[in-house]
Amino acid sequence: MDDSRTRGYMLGALLRIPFEAMALHINEALQKAGFEDIRPAHQRVFQHLPPEGARVTDLAEAAQMTKQSMGTLITHLEEGGYVERHRDPQDGRAQIIHYTARGREVERVARTSIAEIEAVWAQRLGHAEFAHLHKLLWQLVALLEEEPEREGR
Amino acid sequence: MDDSRTRGYMLGALLRIPFEAMALHINEALQKAGFEDIRPAHQRVFQHLPPEGARVTDLAEAAQMTKQSMGTLITHLEEGGYVERHRDPQDGRAQIIHYTARGREVERVARTSIAEIEAVWAQRLGHAEFAHLHKLLWQLVALLEEEPEREGR
Repeated sequence: MDDSRTRGYMLGALLRIPFEAMALHINEALQKAGFEDIRPAHQRVFQHLPPEGARVTDLAEAAQMTKQSMGTLITHLEEGGYVERHRDPQDGRAQIIHYTARGREVERVARTSIAEIEAVWAQRLGHAEFAHLHKLLWQLVALLEEEPEREGR
Repeated sequence: MDDSRTRGYMLGALLRIPFEAMALHINEALQKAGFEDIRPAHQRVFQHLPPEGARVTDLAEAAQMTKQSMGTLITHLEEGGYVERHRDPQDGRAQIIHYTARGREVERVARTSIAEIEAVWAQRLGHAEFAHLHKLLWQLVALLEEEPEREGR
């Protein structure tokens, strides 16, 4: 830990830099697949929108954005035919955002793209090291999900 | 790797989830320290703005945002007294964004907050595992920086 600290990187940057490299890779794959109206910012919607749909408020909270900023991203994706707004059956005033078939196709391209970059990184880092990194990250995520630490949330 | 895949997480999510938890933690620390006008979205400016300053265009590219969205974040931070715009000495038409003393104080609070959450996570994951995670992430980041892989950028 001290090694990388002295080089100026704390854990936040060490998580962010590969994540951003991956986002760029996904963005290029989407451009090539013809989804040219999707910019990196829109990936935040896809990252947080589950297959069963979600409310704008919940999406905004999960993505740590204002409801207004999230609304702007969703309107753009709605205009591009990637998501649709439906009335929430449990609350007539609320709206649920759902994927369209075109939106699910974006998901598929993004997943393929992640698998590709995972394969490249595994080869460069070494397969055993990469598998270990994956496992440690998974353990960390599992800890965060099972019991949100008091000091962290 | 297959373990976590079957649970629905690819590497993108495994990097993103801890990063987002950390961003929330930093946000809370900033609120407590009295920087109540800073929202999580503004952290993207601090993450990418080096001590010597940067142009809006370069900041936008690094943060994978449009120049317009980055400009909106910067205007908000400028109004709050966190950053200042100076004329670029090398190009009179361009502007360089610099931290103010108040902006550097935000940086300090954020760094302390990251160190805190690192300590909590190290304790929960196990210190040896956490140190290993840190080292593997560092190796991955070093690979990405020394030679941006063709398929990833």
